[in-house]
Amino acid sequence: MDSVTPDYHHEMLEKDYLACCGSIQFAKEMALASPFPSLDHAISAARDIWFNKVDVNGWLEAFSAHPQIGGSTSSHHTKSPASAQWSKVEQSTALATATSSSLQELSDWNTCYRQKFGFVFLICASGRSTAEILDELKKRYPNRPIVEFEIAAQEQMKVTELRLAKLFSTKGTVTESGKQ
Amino acid sequence: MDSVTPDYHHEMLEKDYLACCGSIQFAKEMALASPFPSLDHAISAARDIWFNKVDVNGWLEAFSAHPQIGGSTSSHHTKSPASAQWSKVEQSTALATATSSSLQELSDWNTCYRQKFGFVFLICASGRSTAEILDELKKRYPNRPIVEFEIAAQEQMKVTELRLAKLFSTKGTVTESGKQ
Repeated sequence: MDSVTPDYHHEMLEKDYLACCGSIQFAKEMALASPFPSLDHAISAARDIWFNKVDVNGWLEAFSAHPQIGGSTSSHHTKSPASAQWSKVEQSTALATATSSSLQELSDWNTCYRQKFGFVFLICASGRSTAEILDELKKRYPNRPIVEFEIAAQEQMKVTELRLAKLFSTKGTVTESGKQ
Repeated sequence: MDSVTPDYHHEMLEKDYLACCGSIQFAKEMALASPFPSLDHAISAARDIWFNKVDVNGWLEAFSAHPQIGGSTSSHHTKSPASAQWSKVEQSTALATATSSSLQELSDWNTCYRQKFGFVFLICASGRSTAEILDELKKRYPNRPIVEFEIAAQEQMKVTELRLAKLFSTKGTVTESGKQ
């Protein structure tokens, strides 16, 4: 690994971070801020970048990288196979607790949600059943678009934190390979 | 005018409302809600549509219809000559109080603003000097992107209200021609 160029390391880092959160600005700034001495430092940097630096177009870009909850993998996911794989794992509780009628209801509500807000319903699905996700969707649906936009960004951050933790546990080098 | 079709009336209404606020959803919903018995009713409907129904993509669409403050007319303005003309009048105080160096400073700050937030700096410019607008831009620049996004939407609503008032004073038929 020592023989690869710093540019190569940098691109790999960006790809890893893009799998955590599909905003290119987020991935670039995280790669620039790497390496991090700990997961906590990485999460703290990620929160600062996501909430203070990534603009609203970047939020929409990140949202568009998610598949519909309960739906099949989005075409956008070709950008990041790791992200697609993680989505599957994150939704595994929901899928295990789903019936075909609850999946249909979720799909119908997802369609309404997307029509009203212009982006996919985003929720940190880890450990949540289909019924819980559907309840949450129905509760959030009456929100004003700007309110829902900020809630979706907070849910995105929860997903990002879980994925950063996976990245650190499976690929410790990400903390070391950027700058030496 | 009585011989023209309702569809024609409807399209004319949409155009009028699009000149007040460059979101197509806003214009369509205002045209559907027409006619209004008074300007107050129109403003009240406009506020409800803008803040509760138009999604964040629609907000960005409306922002992109504005020329840069102090800059030349945006190419987007070909969509609405009336909007371009109103922008000029709204910015007349700023232009009358501008020096070439203050216009340059405003242009530089506008560029920074657009780089950070991804949309044009939006302010209800009516009656404001270049110095006041520049002060406001500098004050707003440190904001988080989501905070600034909502402030810009509030400024857009102020502009929309002024333009609705002009529409009603110059073109009273807009309240009558939609539905009889």
